[in-house]
Amino acid sequence: MKIDSFDPPMRILMGPGPSDVHPRILEAMARPTIGHLDPEFIRMMEELKQLAQYAFQTRNEMTMIVSGPGSVGMETCFVNLVEPGDKVIVCQNGVFGGRMKENVERCGGVAVVVEDEWGRAVDPGGLERALEANPDAKIAAFVHAETSTGALSDVETLVRIAHAHGCLTIVDAVTSLGGAPLKVDEWEIDAVYSGSQKCLSCAPGLSPLSFNERAMSIVRNRKTRIQSWFMDLNLVLGYWGSHEKRAYHHTAPVNALYGLHEALLILWEEGLENAWARHSDNHHRLRNGIESLGLSFIVPERERIPHLNAVSIPEGVDDASVRSRLLNEFGIEIGAGLGPLAGKIWRIGLMGYSSRTRNVVCCVNALKEVLS
Amino acid sequence: MKIDSFDPPMRILMGPGPSDVHPRILEAMARPTIGHLDPEFIRMMEELKQLAQYAFQTRNEMTMIVSGPGSVGMETCFVNLVEPGDKVIVCQNGVFGGRMKENVERCGGVAVVVEDEWGRAVDPGGLERALEANPDAKIAAFVHAETSTGALSDVETLVRIAHAHGCLTIVDAVTSLGGAPLKVDEWEIDAVYSGSQKCLSCAPGLSPLSFNERAMSIVRNRKTRIQSWFMDLNLVLGYWGSHEKRAYHHTAPVNALYGLHEALLILWEEGLENAWARHSDNHHRLRNGIESLGLSFIVPERERIPHLNAVSIPEGVDDASVRSRLLNEFGIEIGAGLGPLAGKIWRIGLMGYSSRTRNVVCCVNALKEVLS
Repeated sequence: MKIDSFDPPMRILMGPGPSDVHPRILEAMARPTIGHLDPEFIRMMEELKQLAQYAFQTRNEMTMIVSGPGSVGMETCFVNLVEPGDKVIVCQNGVFGGRMKENVERCGGVAVVVEDEWGRAVDPGGLERALEANPDAKIAAFVHAETSTGALSDVETLVRIAHAHGCLTIVDAVTSLGGAPLKVDEWEIDAVYSGSQKCLSCAPGLSPLSFNERAMSIVRNRKTRIQSWFMDLNLVLGYWGSHEKRAYHHTAPVNALYGLHEALLILWEEGLENAWARHSDNHHRLRNGIESLGLSFIVPERERIPHLNAVSIPEGVDDASVRSRLLNEFGIEIGAGLGPLAGKIWRIGLMGYSSRTRNVVCCVNALKEVLS
Repeated sequence: MKIDSFDPPMRILMGPGPSDVHPRILEAMARPTIGHLDPEFIRMMEELKQLAQYAFQTRNEMTMIVSGPGSVGMETCFVNLVEPGDKVIVCQNGVFGGRMKENVERCGGVAVVVEDEWGRAVDPGGLERALEANPDAKIAAFVHAETSTGALSDVETLVRIAHAHGCLTIVDAVTSLGGAPLKVDEWEIDAVYSGSQKCLSCAPGLSPLSFNERAMSIVRNRKTRIQSWFMDLNLVLGYWGSHEKRAYHHTAPVNALYGLHEALLILWEEGLENAWARHSDNHHRLRNGIESLGLSFIVPERERIPHLNAVSIPEGVDDASVRSRLLNEFGIEIGAGLGPLAGKIWRIGLMGYSSRTRNVVCCVNALKEVLS
């Protein structure tokens, strides 16, 4: 066995995530590890909670960081809120809505899927009709920014409709947090999760999560036991909940949390509105460049995620060879399509630290060269 | 809100984990992030798998790294192997056996708990009797090194007994891997999980895991669906399983895996036998020091985990104030007792990079000063 230390190549990450990790964050993750119950670490967790509340625009006491990737954040929402037999309306306009349906079913719930076209925002009318047809539904779940297609949905409206029908809401904000407006309290989202590796520009592996009081009261008053020990928020709260008395639940990913602390601090220093504006500006720059190459977007302009651009692959162009040339000749990673969109689109991300003018210029011109 | 970058204090980590992270590992985690489907990353994952196979002493094809802490490794074993109604014998001699029981029940299984005294190894006779009384048991589960008490059990014998009764075995090797002999293939362990933050001296947050063919055939031939989407090995295998064709399942914690790659490489360079000998040597040094202070161990000598030393707190000594003085005056973290052992023991870890002569000397003399 001949194995050396791993020396990763220098890439520009312009796929669907991870995005480029800011050097300050890389440096933070390399600081000396301390104990997960060290008083200094507990103080850092308090700050992390405040910074996450800022990013989510919420005062929810139950705002914390799940010790796993976004998929664990998603599953944490479903296992805590869905009891066997519960009916959940899932709006599906891409891969991640499908994953939500899987989660509902694995919790013993009944998923009612409202299908939308892949590449379009969730249609509020479809949700409304599903709620009317299913007055016994308990929860409505939808994805804010559908990473698999590049479509951004109007979460504020969807939540309002769900609440008008007495439903709790679960929102996937993995790709939206920090890149596009998301206002958890103002929009009255009940449960929301995100990921560290998109617009926060942190290394992958963590999932910021927030539950409001309405969601927490469901967790506390369940009739059945939560099927996951690791994700049971009643237990996790012993560690993340109260500042004064932290009890061991699991060993927190200490260095990864250093990184997320730094990532959220960078976002706070920049200011959410400025970060949203930067993502939007660079989206427009990229759009101009992409269109100048004669390429087109699959999502209608008003429904696009600014920082995740789904571009149609022109007829006769070999998907894999273009991506591979971009990677090997230019060090640029862009994303492939998933599921039914595999081979049909490229996904060009401009998230967090990757959302920079020079990356736009670099990517558009490299693509021009490869396609010529 | 006034928040700065987090600057952790320099500690010597001599608790039950995390242990001190080797500088090479800290440096590895700070390398530039690349995509989780980047060909170079896939190549690194292949090496990681080989290195984990070496550490576990197994050729199991299904050897991988779970993207979460040891508790997720544990839950991954149970949700994949336990179906509703399955009877599982759980040997409990500390906190982590109790967590196994919780896992069995949350999977809809029936846990038959064989209780052993906290601070003692699991009694093979007790397992034997439980198996005789429960011929319908499907699985037997036990903890190799019980971190909450410092007791090391004879896994080889326990597995042999379980197999003689037709039971599959799940072994918790969170604290043993890399610190004490563990031979997955030779001992015929069916499913085993560990953690990154103990004798591997990596940052917390990852769980190496290995299933043999017998365990995998159970996963593949289940009658019911695995209740967790994230932990369903049938799905995870799409990403970790075959070298040629990796499919997206979740976004791997890229930088954390750089760190574990380096950690396992360091272990491989040192050699497992040498690492075991080092942990054993430093244990003897610590034992001499501890006994010279008039302190005693709660675990009988033959049953001790070499690198996790449970020491009785002398009558009249204030637990918290001793630990707090060690931390604040000497920068040394030692662990408190858990559950019924809270306030009764200290847990002094000498794991991985923390297992060094100078740490032993430092800890014993600091303790001497604080207790005088």
